Amino acid sequence: MSKLFVFVLLPTSLVADAPNLQQKTMKIGMVGRSLAIFRVDKAVLYNDDDPRIKNQAAEAEAVATLLRYIETPQYLRRLLFPRERNLRFAGILPPLRTPHHPLRDERTNPGDYREAAVIKVDELGSLLEIGLREKGFTSERLRVGQRLTVRLGDRLGEDRMAVTQVARGRVEEYWGYDVSLARSLADALKSLKADYVIGTSRYGKNLYEALRGIGDSKPRSVAVAFGGPYQGLFEICERQGVDAGELFDVVINTIPQQGTETVRTEEALMATLALLNASIWGK
Amino acid sequence: MSKLFVFVLLPTSLVADAPNLQQKTMKIGMVGRSLAIFRVDKAVLYNDDDPRIKNQAAEAEAVATLLRYIETPQYLRRLLFPRERNLRFAGILPPLRTPHHPLRDERTNPGDYREAAVIKVDELGSLLEIGLREKGFTSERLRVGQRLTVRLGDRLGEDRMAVTQVARGRVEEYWGYDVSLARSLADALKSLKADYVIGTSRYGKNLYEALRGIGDSKPRSVAVAFGGPYQGLFEICERQGVDAGELFDVVINTIPQQGTETVRTEEALMATLALLNASIWGK
Repeated sequence: MSKLFVFVLLPTSLVADAPNLQQKTMKIGMVGRSLAIFRVDKAVLYNDDDPRIKNQAAEAEAVATLLRYIETPQYLRRLLFPRERNLRFAGILPPLRTPHHPLRDERTNPGDYREAAVIKVDELGSLLEIGLREKGFTSERLRVGQRLTVRLGDRLGEDRMAVTQVARGRVEEYWGYDVSLARSLADALKSLKADYVIGTSRYGKNLYEALRGIGDSKPRSVAVAFGGPYQGLFEICERQGVDAGELFDVVINTIPQQGTETVRTEEALMATLALLNASIWGK
Repeated sequence: MSKLFVFVLLPTSLVADAPNLQQKTMKIGMVGRSLAIFRVDKAVLYNDDDPRIKNQAAEAEAVATLLRYIETPQYLRRLLFPRERNLRFAGILPPLRTPHHPLRDERTNPGDYREAAVIKVDELGSLLEIGLREKGFTSERLRVGQRLTVRLGDRLGEDRMAVTQVARGRVEEYWGYDVSLARSLADALKSLKADYVIGTSRYGKNLYEALRGIGDSKPRSVAVAFGGPYQGLFEICERQGVDAGELFDVVINTIPQQGTETVRTEEALMATLALLNASIWGK
């Protein structure tokens, strides 16, 4: 099967049920792990206008910062993330161990891909942190602080290595997820332009409806939307004045007969991605 | 479909990758949630002889205590669990919100089921904590500290309520999980006597093999075994001198094409139970 792009839509209230920043951080660690385990390409945090959240923009920024921090290779984190309150408990975040988070001795040879960040630019080109003893050098003039994907080239003397910028999509292995923000569920879906759009709800249909849809329409990209810990997707649609029937190709319940009164968003995410992944790759 | 009993086998090293008790507690919280969401009946912690664990018995006891604590209704926890080191961070455990963990005003009427613990026994009978303003009373002479399931009966004066002990299996809703310990993987499987036994491994076959097996043999109980964070099920079998081919009806990989180098046991548990649950109930 050719590559299927998977996008996920999560509400700003994703971790509003956590009592403090430390537990928010743990939950977001679990979300980041789920996205990486199941090779999600994009996560969009949509504003769900949950009345429990006083400052929607601040909450969205906090969640997005933590999700982006987890997705960033460790050797770039200090460069790209200034110390800030939202990252106070970042030390407890689990490592992703994806191909773009190599161990010290992995991916050090010409031809290997690495994530990089620009540390200095002058008329000759740009110097890049690439997580090796050597710095990367490219004659392109980039922007200091920019993150990019590069391919390693030849060694240039003692402490430099030639690198070439490549489009992230060129890498065939799983190469992390993008995080963006959207003002509403409908805006998020509009920005993603996915071929097939799945909503999740405990009042949804069974999974096999969605799979039949995927099988029939052979999409190149699938978006999966989740409700929040306090309000489900149908309630959010109602609050935002949109018709779920128009937004989604199908709405499914991925946890039939759930044993607990509620299922948290990070739990529904893991369960749903597991089902989708096994349906796509497990046959 | 008639009730299918689901058993789970987890290694003693389940949370050996957590750096401290607080993070162990968080992980076990996630495990307890997964067991409850997917209505698991029994969890067996089997000794997997992981060399990183110095005292296998102490580690097994710590994990079992936390798993049992989560499964116990809040109003019985102080009675049944003396203060101990392993429960130091129990305050961060997520609530289960299963039918046997009722809110204050739920399940207070004659005929309702409740979990209870014996607080006093004399020649007339036993007095029980049932999480209500009233205490429960039964003429049976039970053992102080015993936990049991009861059905509420009539009010007996101001502060008593008649109750009748019932077998947990009588309750039709999901009523929590049992936790037991086993000296090895083979011993654990022997004690469970499941009709169909599934192993999980990244080197396993795809899910649909297992489903075909379940479909064909129409089991009344299914056991699912997991490896540890450091060593998979095949390695554990080898260390314990047993043949995976004999222990399991099928060994499946529930996370095909995983995007991360490793998948933690608590993540594999959630993903696998989600797949099994959807396969059983989602058609």
